[in-house]
Amino acid sequence: MSSEISLTRLIDPKRIAVIGASNSKGKVGEIIFKRLLDSRRRLYPVNPKEIVISGIKVFPNIEALPNDIDLAVITISAKASVGAVESCAKKNIPFAIIVAGGFGEVGEEGKKLEEQLKTISQESGIRLLGPNSLGIFLPDENIDTIFVEHGDRALDPGGQVACIVQSGSVGVEALGYASNTGFGMRAFIGLGNKCDLDEIEFLKYFGNEDKTNCVTFYLESIENGREFLEIARDIAKNKPVVVLKAGRTATAISAVSSHTGKLAGSDNIISGAFKQYGIQRVYDDEEFCDASKVLSMLPAALGNRVAILTAAGGYGVIATDYVEKHDQRATLKMAELSSTTKQKILDATFPFSACNNPVDITASADDNMFKKSLEALVNDDGVDIVICIAFFAPPGITENLIDIVARVIEDSNTPVIVFTKYGPFTNSSLRNFFLAKVPGFPAIGRTVRAARFLVERAEIERKLNSDNQG
Amino acid sequence: MSSEISLTRLIDPKRIAVIGASNSKGKVGEIIFKRLLDSRRRLYPVNPKEIVISGIKVFPNIEALPNDIDLAVITISAKASVGAVESCAKKNIPFAIIVAGGFGEVGEEGKKLEEQLKTISQESGIRLLGPNSLGIFLPDENIDTIFVEHGDRALDPGGQVACIVQSGSVGVEALGYASNTGFGMRAFIGLGNKCDLDEIEFLKYFGNEDKTNCVTFYLESIENGREFLEIARDIAKNKPVVVLKAGRTATAISAVSSHTGKLAGSDNIISGAFKQYGIQRVYDDEEFCDASKVLSMLPAALGNRVAILTAAGGYGVIATDYVEKHDQRATLKMAELSSTTKQKILDATFPFSACNNPVDITASADDNMFKKSLEALVNDDGVDIVICIAFFAPPGITENLIDIVARVIEDSNTPVIVFTKYGPFTNSSLRNFFLAKVPGFPAIGRTVRAARFLVERAEIERKLNSDNQG
Repeated sequence: MSSEISLTRLIDPKRIAVIGASNSKGKVGEIIFKRLLDSRRRLYPVNPKEIVISGIKVFPNIEALPNDIDLAVITISAKASVGAVESCAKKNIPFAIIVAGGFGEVGEEGKKLEEQLKTISQESGIRLLGPNSLGIFLPDENIDTIFVEHGDRALDPGGQVACIVQSGSVGVEALGYASNTGFGMRAFIGLGNKCDLDEIEFLKYFGNEDKTNCVTFYLESIENGREFLEIARDIAKNKPVVVLKAGRTATAISAVSSHTGKLAGSDNIISGAFKQYGIQRVYDDEEFCDASKVLSMLPAALGNRVAILTAAGGYGVIATDYVEKHDQRATLKMAELSSTTKQKILDATFPFSACNNPVDITASADDNMFKKSLEALVNDDGVDIVICIAFFAPPGITENLIDIVARVIEDSNTPVIVFTKYGPFTNSSLRNFFLAKVPGFPAIGRTVRAARFLVERAEIERKLNSDNQG
Repeated sequence: MSSEISLTRLIDPKRIAVIGASNSKGKVGEIIFKRLLDSRRRLYPVNPKEIVISGIKVFPNIEALPNDIDLAVITISAKASVGAVESCAKKNIPFAIIVAGGFGEVGEEGKKLEEQLKTISQESGIRLLGPNSLGIFLPDENIDTIFVEHGDRALDPGGQVACIVQSGSVGVEALGYASNTGFGMRAFIGLGNKCDLDEIEFLKYFGNEDKTNCVTFYLESIENGREFLEIARDIAKNKPVVVLKAGRTATAISAVSSHTGKLAGSDNIISGAFKQYGIQRVYDDEEFCDASKVLSMLPAALGNRVAILTAAGGYGVIATDYVEKHDQRATLKMAELSSTTKQKILDATFPFSACNNPVDITASADDNMFKKSLEALVNDDGVDIVICIAFFAPPGITENLIDIVARVIEDSNTPVIVFTKYGPFTNSSLRNFFLAKVPGFPAIGRTVRAARFLVERAEIERKLNSDNQG
């Protein structure tokens, strides 16, 4: 249940207590405390059995802490967590993250513990994230309370996607994707069992802050559907809201019930409501990450006319198939290129280039030909999106292509999406495109789907604006 | 045009001449010659400007070669290749691979050169692969004439997929997939412009040899549709035949025409014919590789009832959605588990495990619980396929899980397909599963689609057998 609160002391805490911080290697309290050392926030380890951790004085108990703690990260067992939350509440600590599992998701006894947490929160006003929460991760602030390994963080500075997930495994894989090939994360929030704070608070927070330009959710249940939808519609006027809501089919819905103990609602109703309220729905973790990436990196498409540029003819044909395929999300069509555009491409490349869209400048092409052809396409008024098939096998194509595409994107309003593969180097190539601010995808189907997200987004902007005026 | 010939001296050559073999680093003739040194076949470099390459005596011209050469690999320019083929024909060399591009695909002049090749072949009887052919690659024989980099070959021994591709880029990516994560390649053939040898000869050859258990094609045009279909039907009685035929839609079809100069045929007709003749159609390179992998590694499914096993609840829900989604390829449904199966799983795991399919043994599960649950599922008569969601994040799950799944597959007739991700280690994890003979996929949609390939295959086997008896 949400009331109007500020999450600032949770998202940007100055003073963090770590309950259960430890020197024992591999313990959750050891891993999290070590991660938090990088945050350069003031840390307050609490553990009756430790004196000093990493040179920082340990407090024997919560009562001994100073009075101005912003956030307690509770890394101890489920049972012990309940008492710790009670002590934190007495100490007027405004936020606590409860990492332990073993609550509502493991049966009756756990449910009782979770009820106790809820009661403490309601009576004292302490706001709780979790239990069974993966934690929070804010790459630019170096705040990371996630105890599972989630790869290299160097990709993340400047990211603008707020990524709010209910389930551990799906969340961890979204983190893995982000650190493998990048989608630019502003924040990662693991909701866990949602005994108190839920998707609505985070939708409001990240929806209304400037650092975030895209808010994405993985949810198994939505606690307060109408409120969520109405807030999402407000946010979606200005920035994309993406939701992966598992449980499309009858069996899946009953699976959700047993997994979280909450009802999931009829799926068709959810789809219809999402559409009406401007939420972009995705159906698995791959779509979740792909939508985050493209919607955060590129503007909405002004129309649905796609041009394809390739030096690898076979892929041009396959991509055309995908563009023209019917898809509920958004209809795409192949752009008709102007004769000026075609002439520009012929002049820049070869007399045997195929200049009817898809444009195939053949494996004899070089970087400069690619550049000129791409410029011709983004400057054609009949083209709304360009799909650029970027392979490094042709001898004339080098990794300079990455910067070439980046500069074209910078100078143009036409979104350019890249399909790239590079054998064993595919991931590092995707990273390099990402670091140059070019969204790249390693499969044609995913690349074309990324274009659909941009067209869908434009339709939402139009619809919500006209609703506004009506 | 195909007549009954043996390709043995092409696929298993004892004596290979390399026309244009070179000491100059980076030249096509240098790369290919060096690769062929690993083949332990007898090599005959030909180059008027070289005396010795890698300790092997160089022949000044084709005329000077001995008379029993099986295969000439021609690595010189398009124009020079025509003369070389003529000389090879005079020397009674039965097969030549023409690597150079610059023929029919680059306009009128190239077309004329290609016509000349065709004439020489028809008049002399020399059989030509190409021009513009990527070459051939037979991992178990260490025969590799492919000049583009295609990654580690160590994954390939014992592979049983014959992979025949028309276009360079799609072919190279299939190779990249094979060396990244494995699908078990028996042979890779780059058809190129098909001035002589085409898909039909290779369909016959690999369709009828024991080392191959799955024949897959990437084709932009099919030279002789009826003959191809009829031979495919014969082969498909015994082993899967998979075709990626680009050009589904109107625009794509005209793109194919400009890319290869050949007509592609109406797409609906092609789809219908494929279905009737037992060919499994795929629509992009990812599907191409995924189908190859699962059809080569697992038997056809006896039915369409799927059980899902997971320790990550969220993914179980998403996977169920995919299973129950309508898909033209094959209908799947969620298996109803017997009460014995459910009891076995509860006994082996936790009272709070979810035992209605999808089976969620929770993140508290360990390897042994996973093993017992998986065994219970493959032994349930109501289960035709098991989708196993294998993550290594839960503390009790280790990489031993790979061998556990492998042993269950070995001991059972029920196909088991794995969905796995492991952050930055996803590819190496997929490789380890592959090396243990377990087909794994890194996305849920792809994993469930793999199950559909096995159900589709079973339907083809049934249909072709009953056609037989009729």
